[in-house]
Amino acid sequence: MRALYLEGGQIHLRTDYPTPEPPPGEALVRVLKAGICNTDLELLRGYLDFRGVPGHEFVGRVVRCDDDPAWVGRRVVGEINAACGTCETCRAGRPTHCPNRTTLGIAGRDGAFADYLTLPTVNLHAVPDEVSDDEAVFVEPLAAALEITDQAHIRPTDRVIVVGDGKLGLLCAQVLALTGCDLLVIGRHREKLDLLARRGIPVALEGEGPFGQADVVVEATGHPGGFQTARKLVRPRGRLVLKSTYHGLLETNMTMVVVDEVTLQGSRCGPFAPALRLLRQRLVEVAPLIQARYPLTEGRVAFERAATKGTLKVLIEVEGTETEEERG
Amino acid sequence: MRALYLEGGQIHLRTDYPTPEPPPGEALVRVLKAGICNTDLELLRGYLDFRGVPGHEFVGRVVRCDDDPAWVGRRVVGEINAACGTCETCRAGRPTHCPNRTTLGIAGRDGAFADYLTLPTVNLHAVPDEVSDDEAVFVEPLAAALEITDQAHIRPTDRVIVVGDGKLGLLCAQVLALTGCDLLVIGRHREKLDLLARRGIPVALEGEGPFGQADVVVEATGHPGGFQTARKLVRPRGRLVLKSTYHGLLETNMTMVVVDEVTLQGSRCGPFAPALRLLRQRLVEVAPLIQARYPLTEGRVAFERAATKGTLKVLIEVEGTETEEERG
Repeated sequence: MRALYLEGGQIHLRTDYPTPEPPPGEALVRVLKAGICNTDLELLRGYLDFRGVPGHEFVGRVVRCDDDPAWVGRRVVGEINAACGTCETCRAGRPTHCPNRTTLGIAGRDGAFADYLTLPTVNLHAVPDEVSDDEAVFVEPLAAALEITDQAHIRPTDRVIVVGDGKLGLLCAQVLALTGCDLLVIGRHREKLDLLARRGIPVALEGEGPFGQADVVVEATGHPGGFQTARKLVRPRGRLVLKSTYHGLLETNMTMVVVDEVTLQGSRCGPFAPALRLLRQRLVEVAPLIQARYPLTEGRVAFERAATKGTLKVLIEVEGTETEEERG
Repeated sequence: MRALYLEGGQIHLRTDYPTPEPPPGEALVRVLKAGICNTDLELLRGYLDFRGVPGHEFVGRVVRCDDDPAWVGRRVVGEINAACGTCETCRAGRPTHCPNRTTLGIAGRDGAFADYLTLPTVNLHAVPDEVSDDEAVFVEPLAAALEITDQAHIRPTDRVIVVGDGKLGLLCAQVLALTGCDLLVIGRHREKLDLLARRGIPVALEGEGPFGQADVVVEATGHPGGFQTARKLVRPRGRLVLKSTYHGLLETNMTMVVVDEVTLQGSRCGPFAPALRLLRQRLVEVAPLIQARYPLTEGRVAFERAATKGTLKVLIEVEGTETEEERG
């Protein structure tokens, strides 16, 4: 099959990559579309020393599922952490933190920028008809945004600031707006912020402050520089939610975090079912985030485009671009 | 001025009622529209032994405000609890629980079914232009629905059941749906439930069970009979949110609440600012809940209509129905 292969900080198309064989408990999924995430760009920069097929935001169709053939033919999205299911962490109900886990296209498991992928059947979620392929690609990052409201209580009376107007920041902002909270989104790109302003969400450019302080601040810039900006916006005894994952280290004044009794809350993968519900009920809008589409064969160009400053979501469209020869 | 006066289980129109004189710190508000709430019907049945002018859901226009004349001419809604501001409860940040409070149209203070009312200026919220008079009348009950998500953490991964498809139940359901939670609304009126089903919210008639159990159940039936139904739907260690206020007592098995370690959470008035934000952003729809409108002069008929089984919101329209003579 065809696959985009990442090694040594480069990505290239392979047309002879072995089609994966689903082990027991896993399904074989034909990828329809996949999205390039900031994490994919960080993998290229060396994050997690990943080598293999990246891609973890996808919609696909199950083509084989020996354990439960009822899945075959269904359109699906998939949770990206494949847990062992038997360790203490899994049994305590925290499978996304299983120490033995592999993560689709990120750690120990090939991902979605390919004709096929495999995932445990328990990770799959059927996509309702009302949710399009384009929208379904956003279920994974939207679930990550919902991890914020799943982890901790955001009150409708809280003042909340999201720092960052990238792909994830825009999704976090939309999810937080649904709480009714007093929300402000601070970014660097007027045209991205306008996507939120159009929905009645208050926005500001970074230089337009001062913004005062907030009960909860979400750092979603995707780079270490966002931390300081976000930290200063948290009120004493407030909460700073950390969504950015990047290659590299952060140097910061942790003493002031102690003095101000601020809670720092790491926040990663979230629940898929509520993301599908919000999309189905049209409570979150994702289509305007799509800025470009490339066939799998132009994966390298797609990555270059995604890495261009200010670009929102770039989709890689897989199905329908495969030739007989490529299928091998 | 004109006012609907409640005493001895009867409501009647008085045209010679004294126009209230706002004490220091209060504003005089010309009522534009007001909504009849289930609590008003309970007052008629003897709840709180109230005598005076009922009505606590309203939109009006400030006509006098000696402390802060900037309010004059502004369209407003108002929080209904007038707190003393100086007691220990007020200073602890819980003014809606001030033991010295009066409550608009409910306890110790005349309400909105009249040409004018007074409220402390601190209780007022300006209504943004994007929110219509009709919608603004729902700010108070919508705030009560938001009290649920303000009081405690509802996770997007929670299973939540709302019992009751009355006015408040429909608002609670819409607010809860915004969390992305796995929601089910159980009611007795197909046509009311359809208002939610149209928005993609799962609904069921009471007889259609079994429904399984939920992490959080909201009892919003408005009568004591709803408690048992709701109680049975809460999983062990789950939470039952009590929204109904009614005249009369409840007899129940509290031992099973202990055995199942269920949390019972009383929930009353909520925050106005988030309610206005949700209405302005069109995240909650209230217009379809309006079923009838009456001028103030037909207040008794309006109450009869509101008390008819299955009726949703009945509005009393005040401004524009006053004659020169009536104004006196």
